[in-house]
Amino acid sequence: MTDDNKRNQPIARLPKGFRDTFGASVIARQRMINTIREVYERYGFAPLETSSVEYVDALGKYLPESDTAEAGIFSFRDEDNNLMALRYDLTAPLSRVFSQNRNSLPLPFRRYQVGLVWRNEKPGPDRFREFYQFDIDTVGTASMAADAEVCCVVADALEALGIGRGQYVVRINNRKALNGVLEVIGLPSDENTSLTVLRAIDKLDRLGLEGVKQLLGKGRVDESGDFTKGAGLTEEQSQRIINLLSVKEDSRPKACDSLEAIVRGSSVGEEGVAELREIDKFLRAIGYDEDRIIFDPTVVRGLAYYTGPVFEAALTFEVADEVGQKRQFGSVAGGGRYDYLVERFTGEKIPATGFSIGVDRLLAALAALKSDPETALSAPVVVTVMDRDRVLDYQKITFDLRQALIPAEMYLGSGSFREQLRYADQRGAVAVVIAGSREFEAGQISIKDLRLGRELSKQIAERDEWLKDQPAQLTVPLADIVLEVKAILNRYSR
Amino acid sequence: MTDDNKRNQPIARLPKGFRDTFGASVIARQRMINTIREVYERYGFAPLETSSVEYVDALGKYLPESDTAEAGIFSFRDEDNNLMALRYDLTAPLSRVFSQNRNSLPLPFRRYQVGLVWRNEKPGPDRFREFYQFDIDTVGTASMAADAEVCCVVADALEALGIGRGQYVVRINNRKALNGVLEVIGLPSDENTSLTVLRAIDKLDRLGLEGVKQLLGKGRVDESGDFTKGAGLTEEQSQRIINLLSVKEDSRPKACDSLEAIVRGSSVGEEGVAELREIDKFLRAIGYDEDRIIFDPTVVRGLAYYTGPVFEAALTFEVADEVGQKRQFGSVAGGGRYDYLVERFTGEKIPATGFSIGVDRLLAALAALKSDPETALSAPVVVTVMDRDRVLDYQKITFDLRQALIPAEMYLGSGSFREQLRYADQRGAVAVVIAGSREFEAGQISIKDLRLGRELSKQIAERDEWLKDQPAQLTVPLADIVLEVKAILNRYSR
Repeated sequence: MTDDNKRNQPIARLPKGFRDTFGASVIARQRMINTIREVYERYGFAPLETSSVEYVDALGKYLPESDTAEAGIFSFRDEDNNLMALRYDLTAPLSRVFSQNRNSLPLPFRRYQVGLVWRNEKPGPDRFREFYQFDIDTVGTASMAADAEVCCVVADALEALGIGRGQYVVRINNRKALNGVLEVIGLPSDENTSLTVLRAIDKLDRLGLEGVKQLLGKGRVDESGDFTKGAGLTEEQSQRIINLLSVKEDSRPKACDSLEAIVRGSSVGEEGVAELREIDKFLRAIGYDEDRIIFDPTVVRGLAYYTGPVFEAALTFEVADEVGQKRQFGSVAGGGRYDYLVERFTGEKIPATGFSIGVDRLLAALAALKSDPETALSAPVVVTVMDRDRVLDYQKITFDLRQALIPAEMYLGSGSFREQLRYADQRGAVAVVIAGSREFEAGQISIKDLRLGRELSKQIAERDEWLKDQPAQLTVPLADIVLEVKAILNRYSR
Repeated sequence: MTDDNKRNQPIARLPKGFRDTFGASVIARQRMINTIREVYERYGFAPLETSSVEYVDALGKYLPESDTAEAGIFSFRDEDNNLMALRYDLTAPLSRVFSQNRNSLPLPFRRYQVGLVWRNEKPGPDRFREFYQFDIDTVGTASMAADAEVCCVVADALEALGIGRGQYVVRINNRKALNGVLEVIGLPSDENTSLTVLRAIDKLDRLGLEGVKQLLGKGRVDESGDFTKGAGLTEEQSQRIINLLSVKEDSRPKACDSLEAIVRGSSVGEEGVAELREIDKFLRAIGYDEDRIIFDPTVVRGLAYYTGPVFEAALTFEVADEVGQKRQFGSVAGGGRYDYLVERFTGEKIPATGFSIGVDRLLAALAALKSDPETALSAPVVVTVMDRDRVLDYQKITFDLRQALIPAEMYLGSGSFREQLRYADQRGAVAVVIAGSREFEAGQISIKDLRLGRELSKQIAERDEWLKDQPAQLTVPLADIVLEVKAILNRYSR
């Protein structure tokens, strides 16, 4: 290659904040998605797939920490100069779809959607610009039965994925309770004040009650010395909010009693508590008790469009963080009621509620729970090519295995036999098929159990002994190949 | 709502060329994808998901009819002013991924990928700017066994989807045969001439041999009077290409003989025919004969990056077109060998070959083949709410059904009973559950078989008789609800 060619050579690199997902990880994600899908369909939700691209005015400005429509999104213009963007979530598109198809859709409209969303934000180690969300929503009902139901369906989905009762909790709160406190302490319950306060509360996990109190008051200096301006509340006002956040009750009705005492006198606050009592009633009737679903006033969720109940599903088992510290795995899903998103388009008030699973977070949790990846068995049996003149025979064996529904492939590269074995290893193959001319002439073939081989090679001290005996390798009649390979695969299937 | 609000109201509309997909269509696509996935994994291909966004220089300019890198794609810039774009296919990203991860990936690298691609082209009735592709490729082998294999796996996938042998055909050609003719007739076999000629041939389906001949020569005037400049070949040169295109042989070896006679004297042409003979040998050894896979010199495929064998899978059964004319369904997948895509990045020649299924086309074909959509049964049983004071009871019934793995939902809207039945109908529900206070008191519940109801209401002439007897409705003890609903669902399951 000349220098000139090299200069024109593009660099093979991923755009910053994006990623590729390989083999076993794709399969694990797909399995998780299929399991959730089944649970959601059992609840009578139908799938929807919306366009990845939306007009920016239809998306609205609802991203946390973004105050303009274009902030945080990837936008471009169409040939008519309309500003379009990649969707940043699945809720804004749902509102658009519902409004656009209002007259032909069943009401309530119950849908789930799993798909990619894009955020033009600063990428970080676990923060990508493209990721999956898995949403479930009911549009067109004000009934708290719908809010209770999405909490149940998410709990059921987590259990279907093998997360045991006690390993997760669904936490419910109500934005109206928070607005009630604002009213009681004499703050305007407009969108801006409410948003500033709830963004401060949203940092509770990271900053603790003291940090939140600073952000509610004058402001806060972080470890690096940077100052964040606060909401400007008085000491007494902040304390009332801190009191709300400090309500911790194992019983849902008791939590409602405590909240009620704090918001008493504010009609919106009392309404919020009444909604929570209603949700409790629906949950109680079907036995979804406090071992699965609790009320927790610290849950606020960052998104600006929530108007009533807000939810969060958190995993309570512990994992080690970067510095080896054990901590609870934490939130894997969030949601709430958003009664104005559709009204933006139609002028008609269409109440709606839903829950969104962070697919990557949940997948990481499943990986943390199970040590042995279940995906290894979907790796193919590799038919090696010892004698290139016999390639049609190897191909025939491969197709015979496939015919018997055994994933199989013939080695198609040009590597040596040793390289072929390394290839099989890289692919995670359970077995390889080996045959030279002499074996073919005797109507025989060898199968090597790679897993057993790995196991034994750990135990057998003497390398020579290992090479001589080859205990993980067996020679069988060519006609028995399918049966014998199946026998090996069966050793490892659950 | 005030006029001022109205002015700020966004319009709920989809960007031009994009679309939403609802319920049953999403399920049908998902099922199709899962079936193909299974076949591909049985062949030892592992899934890959690449970033939706790529740097434009990494994508390259390989779209048909596009001569610049930015033509036909949706592009935007990142914070460092790098030009990025949504991927237009899954092959260019595969080359990027392979080059970037060269040292850690198994070689050959065998992957499948199903995902969205985006084209910034003029949208039409069946031409969207966002659509799914389903690709399968082997990177890192020059063996024609790999080309033969991807043709077999696509044939197997079509059959797994219920497309019978004889209802489809995989057609194979070789770009080198075409280049051989160019050489023989004294034209430069450079990329540009070859591309102009193959783009003319690619229009064969639409324009016929005569139209292609005009495009090879001086040019062509279409029905609207527009003139398309031709490739400028002489009459005799064009005729030689037409001769090549006219080779029609049922037997693959005979097709090779005919092609060989036409390209004789051109080493590249002869090489192309030799590759086809090699593919035939691999196919023959495993019984993939001419009832499934044929050689057809009219197959060229539009993409610029193919270097050797090219493939197409076409459905041969007839469907009615817009004007009621019966015609063959046509191509649903295309592919070929592209030996230079990776070299662009690495300078190292890494041969590769693959096949790409057009998901929408194939889905439309499956819909045309089967009249009864299989998806209806995944619609939920709707538990109606006759007596709103009993909502907790209705909810309990709903959860009991779900516990028995029956998709079910309680009606959550505020509509009348009649509207609830219409809702159930809109959802495609097989059955509705009905209970008023009197029934609850008697420990009973009614189930209405909506399918049987629709059937009977067609047969029964007298509306009064129908209303009196309600033959599709049965009243059962509340405790038997799960059993009785199951019995109805079993009537309709396959």
